Amino acid sequence: MTGVNVALIVQKYGGSSVADAESIKRVAKRIVDTRRAGHDVVVAVSAMGDTTDELLDLANEVAPIPAPRELDMLLSSGERISMALLAMAIHSMGFEARSFTGSQAGMITDSQHGAARIVDVTPVRLREALDEGAIVIVAGFQGFNRDTRDITTLGRGGSDTTAVALAAALSADVCEIYSDVDGIFTADPRVIPKAQKLDHVSSEEMLELAANGAKVLYIRAVEYARRHGVLIHARSTFSSAEGTYVLGEGMKNPREAEGAVMEEPIVAGVATDFSQAKITVAGVPDVPGKAAEIFKIVAKSGANVDMIVQNVSATGRTDISFTVPKADAAAALKALAGEQTEVGFQNLIHDDQIGKLSVVGAGMRTHSGVSATLFEALSAGGINIEMISTSEIRISVVLRDTDLTEAARTVHTAYGLDGDAEATVHAGTGR
Amino acid sequence: MTGVNVALIVQKYGGSSVADAESIKRVAKRIVDTRRAGHDVVVAVSAMGDTTDELLDLANEVAPIPAPRELDMLLSSGERISMALLAMAIHSMGFEARSFTGSQAGMITDSQHGAARIVDVTPVRLREALDEGAIVIVAGFQGFNRDTRDITTLGRGGSDTTAVALAAALSADVCEIYSDVDGIFTADPRVIPKAQKLDHVSSEEMLELAANGAKVLYIRAVEYARRHGVLIHARSTFSSAEGTYVLGEGMKNPREAEGAVMEEPIVAGVATDFSQAKITVAGVPDVPGKAAEIFKIVAKSGANVDMIVQNVSATGRTDISFTVPKADAAAALKALAGEQTEVGFQNLIHDDQIGKLSVVGAGMRTHSGVSATLFEALSAGGINIEMISTSEIRISVVLRDTDLTEAARTVHTAYGLDGDAEATVHAGTGR
Repeated sequence: MTGVNVALIVQKYGGSSVADAESIKRVAKRIVDTRRAGHDVVVAVSAMGDTTDELLDLANEVAPIPAPRELDMLLSSGERISMALLAMAIHSMGFEARSFTGSQAGMITDSQHGAARIVDVTPVRLREALDEGAIVIVAGFQGFNRDTRDITTLGRGGSDTTAVALAAALSADVCEIYSDVDGIFTADPRVIPKAQKLDHVSSEEMLELAANGAKVLYIRAVEYARRHGVLIHARSTFSSAEGTYVLGEGMKNPREAEGAVMEEPIVAGVATDFSQAKITVAGVPDVPGKAAEIFKIVAKSGANVDMIVQNVSATGRTDISFTVPKADAAAALKALAGEQTEVGFQNLIHDDQIGKLSVVGAGMRTHSGVSATLFEALSAGGINIEMISTSEIRISVVLRDTDLTEAARTVHTAYGLDGDAEATVHAGTGR
Repeated sequence: MTGVNVALIVQKYGGSSVADAESIKRVAKRIVDTRRAGHDVVVAVSAMGDTTDELLDLANEVAPIPAPRELDMLLSSGERISMALLAMAIHSMGFEARSFTGSQAGMITDSQHGAARIVDVTPVRLREALDEGAIVIVAGFQGFNRDTRDITTLGRGGSDTTAVALAAALSADVCEIYSDVDGIFTADPRVIPKAQKLDHVSSEEMLELAANGAKVLYIRAVEYARRHGVLIHARSTFSSAEGTYVLGEGMKNPREAEGAVMEEPIVAGVATDFSQAKITVAGVPDVPGKAAEIFKIVAKSGANVDMIVQNVSATGRTDISFTVPKADAAAALKALAGEQTEVGFQNLIHDDQIGKLSVVGAGMRTHSGVSATLFEALSAGGINIEMISTSEIRISVVLRDTDLTEAARTVHTAYGLDGDAEATVHAGTGR
């Protein structure tokens, strides 16, 4: 945190950052360096590498449908292992470190095993340990329910949420989320080599980027940070370079203290998403309530609808197209086919060869012509748009998946986001 | 427990009994069968197979001397994994099962990490679960300290102790300790093929047998059971045959209810021990206090002295010989050598080619001639005795290790312990 004088820092390290003994020692050294810089440190850590998946495999070997309470008891042992090893490693470097399970850390959740929501955080023991000068290591991903006194887990991206929740409860100055990418980029560097690392991004922009394909942070953690005014710093475990700050409402960019004032770009980034499929319900009677009928059926199938477009109709019939994650498409199609006569549509068209391009920027609120730039760039590139949807700070278009990479590059250039140097991309997933 | 009407059964399964998914399912079925027979069941389970050793290796990779508190936090995750998997497996067989960590089970210990002693057992949650008809699975080997609120582990043989402590706290009717041997034998079947499985053995006999080489039960657990009046049933995970009951003071053999009255043998069994080494301190000035001096030095070295023999002296000098575990010998020798001038002995002789033969039987109290039988058998076999020590119910002799097996067979026969059939020996260690 060069130049920024911080009292309490929360750090989160994912499974790939503590995959083996060597990685654990490297992370321990990094934590010790932060402590040496004079900061109090609280660390949320995930299970080592693929531990969680291996435990899940074991569970499925002994029980086709593992009891949720026992599954959480099982999975929570993964972080217990990594946090104890991390505390030992720090200890052997001559620094006092103490590890705490979710329940010891006061991470109180509801009783929904496998996807528990945090209802309260009472980090009494963590404060004690900090007051005694210890570095605090907390098991990510887990909590416990006060009524049942059972262990729970937070579900996907749980460790990010643990870190942000601890930062909020302890009024930390910053929550550093470490992964194997250098921060948030104007686009996925694997798609657009000229993508630039953002110095900072607003939490609402981050939410739109994450919701539309950016993988660095989990929406849930960003949302929690936004609600509780936690400053997130997304950075890399493998470099000491600063990453990207995610600034909530009215939050000040820590680096502006250094006089490094930067003008707000209109567009923060371009997100690409290959994970969606398009379903078209063709020949729907153009009478009120049909859309409601259709999406009630889709919702019941458990499919998560993203974009929706209804074509204007002249014939008394209309086509309704929507996108869902590729994994959900089959269920949605099956559900709709089952109700064809009731709904009265003519046929279903499934298309999983699409790609989604999103342009995100808080500046859209105040600047006109942002969408025009997008459409001009695409038409100049001869790229056909199949669907359009917009939010207050986002424009998304659906294209042929084969066009997406080229389209993203064109648009990235059109908005003046290209950097001079090419971004370096580390291996691994960062989760 | 054929014919014995039991209300509450505590069962302990070691690491080799839950080494993989298949073993866990087999154990689950066994537990379910006990439940089906109408009994309440509480299970103490060890970590899967070599999990604990693997975790220890990891710890040593990240820290030369792992912090004790963190090491206990790490190791305790092993039982957490096995107990959750076992509970799942039972669940998927249609029976309600709930797993509990040491702290959830109310296993309260002192704060000595790695070798904690149980100070109290408050199984409130276990009673609740039993009242609700659930099968209770408890993590063996672990507890927690009320003052520090930290997780502790009980050390070697901890899961046996957990099971016995739970049986005592819940006033269980029996504590079944499962391993891969069929029970307690009149001798180690690997040494003496004609060894017979004992129907029952007194806890004081069991303590002597365990202290002198019998590996089936841990002294600590047997001692805890003796003090708290817990009936132990040592039996095999791999057979439904009954094993051996360990009867405490005034305890009735459950099978006598079936009218199977059996006469008490004078000798319960013959124990063999290859793990000891002999150290002779030669030419010790024959003046008062020298022995005390010597054994204070040995004790300081951490060596655990077993047998001691002082030769009668005519020369004003005497030889003092004692046995220690082979692993402790080097430390003891080093310590003694360091004090040679102070003590004034002439030289040290180290001998790790010895074996110890022990004959154990409560009947020795009331029957004379037991030792005579031993010495006659050995001399008839032309076997030389190097050291002798006795307790109220035990005679031990030290021999050349090369003589031990033959000596044990001769003595086993001399006391009429040979069976007609040869005992079957299962693979594995039973731990």
